[in-house]
Formats: sequence, C-alpha cells, structure tokens
Amino acid sequence: MSTMELSLAEMMQEMGRKARRAALKLAALKPAAKNAAIEAMAVSFLENTDLIVAENAKDLEKAQANGLSAAAIDRLKLDPKRIAALAGALREIVALPDPVGEMFNVRTRPNGLRIGQVRAPIGVIGIIYESRPNVTADAGALCLKSGNATILRGGSEAFHSNSILARLMDEASASVGLPEGAIQFIPTTDRAAVGELLKLKGLVDLIIPRGGKPLIERISRESEIPVIKHLDGNCSVFVDASADQDMAVKIAVNSKAQRTGVCNAAETLLVHADIADEFLPKVCAALQDKKVEIRGDEWTQRLVSGAKAATEDDWYAEYLDLIIAVKVVRTFEEAVEFINHYGSHHTDTIVTRDHDNAMNFTRMVDSSCVHINCSTRFSDGGEYGLGAEIGISTDKLHARGPMGLVELTTPKWIVFGEGQIRG
Amino acid sequence: MSTMELSLAEMMQEMGRKARRAALKLAALKPAAKNAAIEAMAVSFLENTDLIVAENAKDLEKAQANGLSAAAIDRLKLDPKRIAALAGALREIVALPDPVGEMFNVRTRPNGLRIGQVRAPIGVIGIIYESRPNVTADAGALCLKSGNATILRGGSEAFHSNSILARLMDEASASVGLPEGAIQFIPTTDRAAVGELLKLKGLVDLIIPRGGKPLIERISRESEIPVIKHLDGNCSVFVDASADQDMAVKIAVNSKAQRTGVCNAAETLLVHADIADEFLPKVCAALQDKKVEIRGDEWTQRLVSGAKAATEDDWYAEYLDLIIAVKVVRTFEEAVEFINHYGSHHTDTIVTRDHDNAMNFTRMVDSSCVHINCSTRFSDGGEYGLGAEIGISTDKLHARGPMGLVELTTPKWIVFGEGQIRG
Repeated sequence: MSTMELSLAEMMQEMGRKARRAALKLAALKPAAKNAAIEAMAVSFLENTDLIVAENAKDLEKAQANGLSAAAIDRLKLDPKRIAALAGALREIVALPDPVGEMFNVRTRPNGLRIGQVRAPIGVIGIIYESRPNVTADAGALCLKSGNATILRGGSEAFHSNSILARLMDEASASVGLPEGAIQFIPTTDRAAVGELLKLKGLVDLIIPRGGKPLIERISRESEIPVIKHLDGNCSVFVDASADQDMAVKIAVNSKAQRTGVCNAAETLLVHADIADEFLPKVCAALQDKKVEIRGDEWTQRLVSGAKAATEDDWYAEYLDLIIAVKVVRTFEEAVEFINHYGSHHTDTIVTRDHDNAMNFTRMVDSSCVHINCSTRFSDGGEYGLGAEIGISTDKLHARGPMGLVELTTPKWIVFGEGQIRG
Repeated sequence: MSTMELSLAEMMQEMGRKARRAALKLAALKPAAKNAAIEAMAVSFLENTDLIVAENAKDLEKAQANGLSAAAIDRLKLDPKRIAALAGALREIVALPDPVGEMFNVRTRPNGLRIGQVRAPIGVIGIIYESRPNVTADAGALCLKSGNATILRGGSEAFHSNSILARLMDEASASVGLPEGAIQFIPTTDRAAVGELLKLKGLVDLIIPRGGKPLIERISRESEIPVIKHLDGNCSVFVDASADQDMAVKIAVNSKAQRTGVCNAAETLLVHADIADEFLPKVCAALQDKKVEIRGDEWTQRLVSGAKAATEDDWYAEYLDLIIAVKVVRTFEEAVEFINHYGSHHTDTIVTRDHDNAMNFTRMVDSSCVHINCSTRFSDGGEYGLGAEIGISTDKLHARGPMGLVELTTPKWIVFGEGQIRG
C-alpha cells in the first residue's frame, strides 16, 4: 500500500471517529437545539450568498472546460435565487416534527417493568450522491434533524459547491453549540476515498447511495456497512377488466408522460385481455398524442398502428423517456406475476372497479408503493405528506418507499425498572 | 465447476423458486388459514410422535458414534414429552396476533388520496441455525404466521430430526390448503448448499443466521442477500454514584449469575469512582459467593481479594461463564463511552437514582436494549411480552432487539385513489 493510500485511509478513519463523537452528542439533543442549528444554516446560506456563488463559479468554469451539456451546467448552477431556495428548504425541515424520542409499543409487565420502544438516531450515515448541490443541504439537514452525523460525498463536478455548503452548515451548527463534525464533506475528489468510507465498519452505521444504478450496485457490492438502496423505478400501470376506461386512459397518460425523467414514471402498461380490443386503441392514441412511443406485444401491435415490437429487454427497461412497453395479460394473476418478475419493486398501479382485485393487488404486488386507481407519479415524500425525503428505498428491510425523518431513526427497546431481577 | 456443484446450485434455485411461488400465495392468506395450518402441524407432531422419535434416533446414534458430550446429546434428544412441548409451542404461536395487514400512518391528502402503510410479509426467509431441533418448529411456524416462506438449514447433527419436523409441517400446512413449499428444509448436509443459498438474490429476501459468532460473521461476509445478525451479548451493568447499592448488588448478581450461558447475561460491571471504595467489596463478595471469578482493573484488584488482573481482551469478552470483568469509571460519560466501545450493542443496564443520568443512558447508550434499574436478563421476547421470538438482533437496521412476528414483516405504502392524476 502506498503512503498516499495509507494517509487517505487514515483521513477517512479520523472523519469517522469525529462523526462518531458528534453522533453521541447529537443523540441527546432536544428538538429545539437541532432546529436552531438548521435555522442558523439557513441564515448562513443567505449571508454567505456571494461566497457560495464564487465557489460555485469554480465548478461551472470546470464544467464548461469539460464540455458538459447546457442542461448539466444549469443543474449545477447556484445563483442568489437558488441559494434562497436552499435556505427555504432548510426552514421546511425545521418545521417538520422531530421523530427522535417518540415512544411506542409501551406496556407494563406483571412484574412492574415498563417496557417500550423509543426512536433513536441511527448514528453516523454516509451519503454518496451524484446529483445537484441541493442534496448536500437537504441530506445534511435531514440527518441532523434526526440526530445523525453525516459524512457526505458528492459528485466531483460539484466539488467546490458541495464543500462550501457543507462547511457553512457545520460551522453554523457549531456556532449554536452543536458538536463539530456533525456534517462533514470528504475533502478530496479521489475516488479511493469512497472505498475507504465503505470500510469504516463500527464508525459508520449506514450508507445511502443516490445516483445511477451502476453507482448504487457497485457501492452495495463493495460496502462492509449496511446499504439502503435507491435503485431504478420500472413502474407499471395495470388496467383490469373492470376498470373505468376513461379513468384508466388518464392515469396511464399521467403516469407515463406528466414527467418522464423520474423514478415514479410508468414504463409498462398491462391491459386485461377481456377489454384489450376496446381499450388498447384508445389508450395508445392518447399516449401517442403525447409523443409516447409504443412498444407492444403481438396483440398490441395488431391493434395499434405505429406500435413497435417489444423485446424481453423492454419489459425490464426503465426508459426515463417518452417510450412505454405495452402487454396484454390473460388474468389478474398473470399481471401480478409479471409485475413481480419484471418490475423493480418501486411503484405499481391497478385501475379497477373490482374490490377483491384491488385488495389482492395491495397484498400480492411486492412493491414499496402499491397504488389503486391513481397515478404512479404520486409516490414521493411530498405527495404522501411526509415532508422532505432523502430518497425512495426499493429495499424491503428497514425502509421501503419514501425515506423521511422517521426512516433515519431506529427503534431501541428501553426498560424502566425499580430493582427487578429475574427469578 | 463440477457436475455435483452444478446440480446442487440447480437444486437450491428450484427450492428458491418453489418458496417464491408459495410466498406469493401466503401473502394473501387470512389469519385463520395460517392458524389452521399451524394447528395442523401441532396435531401432526402429536400423531407422528413415533416417527419423529425414530428419525431422531438416527441423529442420536450418530452423535454417540461421534463421541458428542452427554449434554450435547441431551439437547438433541426428542422424546414424547419434548415433542408434546414442540406442539404446545406451535399452539402459542397460533394464539399470537397476526401482524400482516395492520395499517398505520394512515392519512387523507387534500386531493382525496387515502395513503397509509400496511405490514406485509418479507417474502422468502432463509434460516441457518446450529442449535436444537425446536428451532425448526419455532422458526418455520413464526415465519408462516407472518406470511413468509422459509428455507431452513439446521446443523448436520440434527439432520434427520430437522428433516422430519420440516416435512411434517409442510405436509400439514398443505393438507389444509396452504401452498406446498411454504416450509422447506435443505435435503443435504453438504456445506456447499449454504453457499448456494446465499446466492439466491431475487428468490430469497432475508437470511437470519442463528449460532456462534464465527458462523454468523462468515454468513454475513459471504451473503449476497441482506442478513439480520444475532451476534454476541457482551452486556454491562453500570452502577452510578447515586445508585441504591443494595439494589445494585442484587441486579449485578442476577445479571451475571442467574444463568450464564445466555446472550443477555452480564459480562462487565462498571462502578462509578465516587462509590467504588464502599460498593466494590460488597458486590464482589456477593459475586464470589456465587462462584463468580472477578477480573478487575487496578482499583478493583486493590479492594477485592482474589481479583485477577483484567486485560484489554477481558473488556471485549463474552464469557458465557462464571467470570465478570470489573472496572471503575470516573464519570457517567466514561461509562457510556466504555459501553459503546467495548460492548456488543445488545443489552446494558444502569443502576441509578439520578433521573438525568437514567434518561441520558437511554439516549446515549447505543444498544438494542437499554435497561434502567433492572437485570440485563429481562431482554427477551417472552419477558418483554412479545411472545415467541426468532432471535435477538444486534443490528441497527430493520429489527433491533427481540425479533417477533412484527419484525418478520415489512411495511409497504398503499394508496387508494378514485382517478387522481398529478398536475
């Protein structure tokens, strides 16, 4: 191992220890102290707008030199209006209820022991992300509000922007009495730092990667620390035989075309054979009106002019584009099995007027979010009324679906006694 | 890869697919159907007592031939009385409330969507265990009651006993209309089968290993499937300066000596410096009366005759024996940091009359079970009033502490709409 690698490993371990020390103190803080810190961060963003813009300019300059697309450069850009929006998002997090300390499952046992579960912070959370600098602000503040220390690792394109935001947040937080190191940003773009982060077992409790599927799969494979994954959204709309067909057309079009580049957009349309001949031409015409390309099975191709042939790959695809895969299914069970096999366990909708099918769809479809008679596009923390989210988990354990403040905590059992011993 | 390995891999994949098909049907079952299946298992155990005894005799014969200890052979043995106890344990599981379908976090949004979380089975659970045949019955029935299919892998010493119990359970379950393959036992003692099981990503959702720490660490390292660990129990009793000292002696002795071979027995005693000179001689005399060996820091050795010197290894040790490590701490914070550093995040107790310290102990000690003024020995599903447990998780994510039926489920979000689309 070279000296350079050794010192990177040491640097990451020191960050881990600093985060662990901060986490111990954060766990005992009252909500008002954490809210004061997040409010101080918002104030700091507003007061340091010029500094943030100057640091952001370094990233923009590099992006232009590297020939990034105009859209990518725009996503990177922070101007006074966007910085004010970051501060506003922090204040929304201040307004959310604090989950830490909530007790549940409380019971008194015959021997007088009072036993219950209490929500506690997870501890130290590593967040690895590719996207815009606003993740730095949102993720850092959500983790702090839930009593966790964070080690942040953003994409190299936004290195200077992320660094200054994280530094201002940690300084603001320390200025109102919180421990230093509650929010740390890895101070290098060296990719080996991620590998070192994933080895900090005992110092880091959880890794949350946010980005493309290849990034997330690589991190899940390499990590010695538990990972909660936010993989792809191959979402389906299943139109049952009993569906209100006008409603089904609206839901299919909205799920597919209202916005295409998002994980809760529909990628597959399943139609029950009993209504296929009547329904398919209507829904496909409405989709084609919105410039959606149809890739269908034989039945669909027979009925819909302009429909291309769907391949096996199409059933698995997350297009994130104006394309939809369309298939006719013979039975309700076939639809469920198709979704469980080809889907990504993110969000799936049934359109039906049959109550048994509606209820069995919620029981048998193995997805984080199961919708009845509404668009797939509703599956996110804001639309569910949970407030800001750190992502949408496609895992089954710990957190499933939108991950808000509650999902950044873990329940521990506490037992209050008065001297009881076991007989 | 040899033909033999290939066919083992194929066999495991077929078990995985069979379990997955069963799980789809189990998810939609009503509580009464699952209870009828577990009751049928209890009846089958009683009716097939002779068959179980005969199969068990094969394991006992091999155990004697291999020179197992009398204690190990006794743990393996199934006689009519113990088989009746297995049936009785199944009937206790019938009597527990069914968590599947429970709704919570229910809210109606301004657009009329009704949104909530509902407890759903995890799916297919692989259980790898070393211990007695009763785990086959308990684990299979707990998983089935929570709507999960199981693939069981018990220790080779109990191969025939485990195989017959699992077969009777699956047959009894199928006889009342449940899907075949709800409970499967791996039909070989070939160790490579475990490796193949741990590769069944997509077919198996969760691995729960139960056994010694080396087994669990190996499985966690090798598995491509999420694992919930039940690692060691290095539990502490911290006697604070303000403690009721008579109570503290009783709690320390009970935590250490009431039963030693269990994960919730205490292995470390921490005493606040302000009372050490008075308290240490009393508590150590009481422990020595129970034949407990004292391994202490210098302060303890000075005060307690017969105390040996504790090494760094002693602070980490899970003795599972009549030995305790004893240390004096200068402050409350030192006790918390010592427990978080050397402990195993299982169960820790404070004895105190100081309310702030009691509450801060619950917030700052990073353990599954945090006890105030009572024995560490209370941390299990039965004592907590949860009913049968599948183990005690020392992980922080998904399940922490005793894992009962609720912890064998996962919440999914369901949304009931009437045609809503996103604007």
